[in-house]
Amino acid sequence: MKKVVIAQAGGPTSVINATLAGFVEGTMEDNKLIYSRNGYEGLTYGNFWDGTEEMNKWVIENKHVPGACLGSGRFPLEDDYIMQCVDQLKKIQADALVVIGGNGTMEALSKMEEEAANRSYDLQVIGLPKTVDNDLGATDHAPGFASAARYVAQTTRDISRDLYSMRNFEQVRILETMGRNAGWLALASGFLRKYEEDGPHAILIPEKTVKKETLLQEVDRAVQKYGYAVIVVSEGVQWADAGTGQIEKEMVNGRAILGGISSEIELFLKEELHVMARAELLGMNQRSSSVFVSPVDYREAYEIGTCGGRWLKEGKNKIMVSLQRTEQFDYNISKISVDLKEVVQEGERLLPDYFIDNPQAYYEWLEPLMGDDLLAYPSPIPRRDSHVKEPFQSK
Amino acid sequence: MKKVVIAQAGGPTSVINATLAGFVEGTMEDNKLIYSRNGYEGLTYGNFWDGTEEMNKWVIENKHVPGACLGSGRFPLEDDYIMQCVDQLKKIQADALVVIGGNGTMEALSKMEEEAANRSYDLQVIGLPKTVDNDLGATDHAPGFASAARYVAQTTRDISRDLYSMRNFEQVRILETMGRNAGWLALASGFLRKYEEDGPHAILIPEKTVKKETLLQEVDRAVQKYGYAVIVVSEGVQWADAGTGQIEKEMVNGRAILGGISSEIELFLKEELHVMARAELLGMNQRSSSVFVSPVDYREAYEIGTCGGRWLKEGKNKIMVSLQRTEQFDYNISKISVDLKEVVQEGERLLPDYFIDNPQAYYEWLEPLMGDDLLAYPSPIPRRDSHVKEPFQSK
Repeated sequence: MKKVVIAQAGGPTSVINATLAGFVEGTMEDNKLIYSRNGYEGLTYGNFWDGTEEMNKWVIENKHVPGACLGSGRFPLEDDYIMQCVDQLKKIQADALVVIGGNGTMEALSKMEEEAANRSYDLQVIGLPKTVDNDLGATDHAPGFASAARYVAQTTRDISRDLYSMRNFEQVRILETMGRNAGWLALASGFLRKYEEDGPHAILIPEKTVKKETLLQEVDRAVQKYGYAVIVVSEGVQWADAGTGQIEKEMVNGRAILGGISSEIELFLKEELHVMARAELLGMNQRSSSVFVSPVDYREAYEIGTCGGRWLKEGKNKIMVSLQRTEQFDYNISKISVDLKEVVQEGERLLPDYFIDNPQAYYEWLEPLMGDDLLAYPSPIPRRDSHVKEPFQSK
Repeated sequence: MKKVVIAQAGGPTSVINATLAGFVEGTMEDNKLIYSRNGYEGLTYGNFWDGTEEMNKWVIENKHVPGACLGSGRFPLEDDYIMQCVDQLKKIQADALVVIGGNGTMEALSKMEEEAANRSYDLQVIGLPKTVDNDLGATDHAPGFASAARYVAQTTRDISRDLYSMRNFEQVRILETMGRNAGWLALASGFLRKYEEDGPHAILIPEKTVKKETLLQEVDRAVQKYGYAVIVVSEGVQWADAGTGQIEKEMVNGRAILGGISSEIELFLKEELHVMARAELLGMNQRSSSVFVSPVDYREAYEIGTCGGRWLKEGKNKIMVSLQRTEQFDYNISKISVDLKEVVQEGERLLPDYFIDNPQAYYEWLEPLMGDDLLAYPSPIPRRDSHVKEPFQSK
């Protein structure tokens, strides 16, 4: 029987509790579980919950609940804190540490293992991936992303249809998605686009700086041709021109909260094109809506937890559970273990050029993650035919 | 065979096309349909689509699509325009005018009927109700509202669970809903609240001016007790104190676009309570998300269309199709005709005091509109038991 500490770290997702539940269901019989509260904060200060039968049951009951039931939160991972975490783990004689998180989490986990090894303290560490914006490397994708992508795709489609019907009053909407350095979520906004006149008409991602003049031309073209334009922009986009770009609203625990580039674009387009424009942050629904959870995402999240449990038993160490696509066309996923150091080395995973240059290839890659039930939702149909006396007039 | 002009007016909803489809399916065989583009704008300028077989089919195909497929938009309804609309209707020798809309729509419809009568032009007019914020009078409720309420309730619940899990980093979120003068949508945010520590912890509605000091106390209490606070605020809320309140972002076609009171509250709370707070506009998903459509709302929207078609045939005139609850406990709806003048007289329908003072009574009233499938979604469970070492600490 191992004494296993488990934590959830970083921004939560709508399926991070499924991963926790999968791990707990698979391991609670044979191990003594200890829960760290609020991610690394609990590890640092020794703020633990005992894995009683009642507590384990409660964790499992939360499997469909968005957010991290153990508490998550962002905690600065400086070396001093890493030392303290290892102190606390040693103090309670933990045999293993399992953390569900993203890039920063995997890096911290790797450092803790090193620190423990330096002290000749035998600590088994396993990382379970989660992400909203898909910037975690060394895995095909990670749980949390597909549900967020579903939210962005469906919301963009529906808001686009709404704006289409209001275009004599309001011509432009700018939707801002999460994505500090990676444009996976923003680019997913075009997944349900069917017709030429459907939004989004422009997608701005952090991987490519944006020329204001180009944006202006694209928006003007769409407004002239279709009477409206929907623009999707990642919070992290930077202008190619001198000036601003991603906007740091404020610093909290050493982390800049981004947000506001859509409002900047709103003002810019109003001034230049004299259109009615409205910025909208897609907000926390991206990572927390239970309504948009992809069944595939949920299942993978849960299975990553159970897989982590199996590998704990097998003694695998210093690894992250990674998803690998084994078939290019028929979606088939296997779990492989990757070295934590490899995950750290890969750093933030950005959209590759072959997806940026060919979004259709990206949408084919994305499709199996979105869930079969997605396309069953109503599909709006703009008509280009003669009875719709196009071209639409913009005002 | 009557020549019937039909239009969609005002802000669209996620089910306004269902009403149109219901009307068209019921009437296209026996009547000559003419579609007005972009609501009253098309009526004013004679911008019509002919109800060909192909066009009618296309309208019916749109029944599940959010937004108004004929185009809607806000159009100023001054007397000059009313005259012009009647001119256009007379020119094409329309026998009837049917418009799907809210308060402003019903008022304009009533005026057009009067103007036609003054000219001894025999014009049958029927209004079909739609609303997002439920401020339309002389009906129990109107299509569009329940789906929007569902969005607000589910989003508040999920975002609340997300914030709960992040409370060591971020303590307060302020969600801003639609609702210029009526708080139906904002108050609906508490519909799925189950436990004392669940958000929303404060709901601000336009019907009651808000004292900043009271808000401060409520938020501080929740943060102290639960570690976080979720506040829901209608865009139209006004402060009891001197100073601002509802914020007019800009004027478009004589209509003030509201928005921004949540950001004002964010700044105020940061300053006074030194917490991390974040404002979020719930945005256009409220009125346009196909994912949150309540099956009851959809069905009622469609049936209001078919009912309008029957009454057209029966020659009913100067009326709106209104929903009446015939049973207090078992939800049972019948359609009655109300005089357009009565609708106009009732004006904007605000939340009654008995709902404001007793939200539980409001939630009982709301429940049958939300759809049976709503509560099947995951229900988050915060634990107050001993293993969760309460009270949570705020930072």
